[in-house]
Amino acid sequence: MEALQTSIDEILGLERRALERWCRGDPSGFLEISASDVAYFDPFLERRVDGLVALTAYYESLRGKIFAQRFEILVPRVQLLGDAGVLTFHFVSHGEPGEVHRWNCTEVYRRGPEGWRIVQSHWSVTGRRTS
Amino acid sequence: MEALQTSIDEILGLERRALERWCRGDPSGFLEISASDVAYFDPFLERRVDGLVALTAYYESLRGKIFAQRFEILVPRVQLLGDAGVLTFHFVSHGEPGEVHRWNCTEVYRRGPEGWRIVQSHWSVTGRRTS
Repeated sequence: MEALQTSIDEILGLERRALERWCRGDPSGFLEISASDVAYFDPFLERRVDGLVALTAYYESLRGKIFAQRFEILVPRVQLLGDAGVLTFHFVSHGEPGEVHRWNCTEVYRRGPEGWRIVQSHWSVTGRRTS
Repeated sequence: MEALQTSIDEILGLERRALERWCRGDPSGFLEISASDVAYFDPFLERRVDGLVALTAYYESLRGKIFAQRFEILVPRVQLLGDAGVLTFHFVSHGEPGEVHRWNCTEVYRRGPEGWRIVQSHWSVTGRRTS
């Protein structure tokens, strides 16, 4: 159980540090912990991004353009499946006063010689149930 | 390599059969292959759904309300990580004439005694890049 908790803490720590840099306009935090075969979805793209080379090109186009004063990670959960860890959470970022963005996030991490690396990333906008 | 391809084919087959039922208004196809600890995101919910009991309650509320004449699975990709398989694809459903819905989909499958089961499901709307 201790080893499992260590894995969970490692994954959450990696994600939090990458998000801290992301919110200062620096995408390198995520790029440094993404695997060469990463698969990536976000709400702005027509197609999944495949591979770190393509993700780097996309993220470099966003460098310096994203800013959040603070953020929250809500209900983080890590499902461990051998050398894979599936992290899901809601991400809430606070930019200018009154500007709040809410996200659904899935990050699949794989453990390898270099440690945990993201192999799948899915970001989407959190809904408001109407019923 | 043959065993890997078999796993990929199994996962794709499960997903396709569940989608065929889904498009006829029957959510049981997905419920039957979801694990008890499944985590679930879609664009209509304010919070992640945790667990098969909660997902069943939600999906039962949709039973008979979803219909698509046909659908496409675009660029399906399975990343195998030991006894986990990460399936990503774009789902395009065609309902009434001219009604097309485009989705980003991530399904994380786990292999166990019963076969492959979904432990994480993330559905979101595919974007249209403006730049």
